[in-house]
Amino acid sequence: MEQAVATVLVEDARVRVTRFDFAPGAATGWHRHGMDYVITAITDCPMRIVGPDGAARDVLVPAGTAYVRDAGVEHDVVNAGSALMSFVEIELKAPVSPAP
Amino acid sequence: MEQAVATVLVEDARVRVTRFDFAPGAATGWHRHGMDYVITAITDCPMRIVGPDGAARDVLVPAGTAYVRDAGVEHDVVNAGSALMSFVEIELKAPVSPAP
Repeated sequence: MEQAVATVLVEDARVRVTRFDFAPGAATGWHRHGMDYVITAITDCPMRIVGPDGAARDVLVPAGTAYVRDAGVEHDVVNAGSALMSFVEIELKAPVSPAP
Repeated sequence: MEQAVATVLVEDARVRVTRFDFAPGAATGWHRHGMDYVITAITDCPMRIVGPDGAARDVLVPAGTAYVRDAGVEHDVVNAGSALMSFVEIELKAPVSPAP
């Protein structure tokens, strides 16, 4: 299966912002989210999400919409559509507690 | 001047995620950012940014790109293009210090 292309757009102490581009049928591969994150759909995103139990669920995330998820999510994400699919992921870095 | 349309997509303890849609020539109106924020361009965004000194600066933010800015920024943002312009703003809420 073709791999989705991940491009880090910005990273600083607060966030890591990565765009994911998926050719039709491409996938991220299995991964676990280490940080809370926001997904912003750039194109319409016909995602097939494969969960820990192996079950696949198809969901359409329309362009210009967004959602937030907690750290700890584990899945594979596949472009179930026939066109390029792109979204931007904004990972929220845990706040660094100020020096005592 | 026509107003840009702001739609809050998600809000929780961590972030407020708002999509801004601008008809050609529409503007946000003068505003100050109270939180650090990430901008993710959904469409190509031909922005005219008017700063505190009144000077206008045109910048093209391509679809699928993003940038991060600190709280305190003050400006007006205008769609200087001839097509609909949309971006999603992710405001980063200050971490709530845990109860003592």
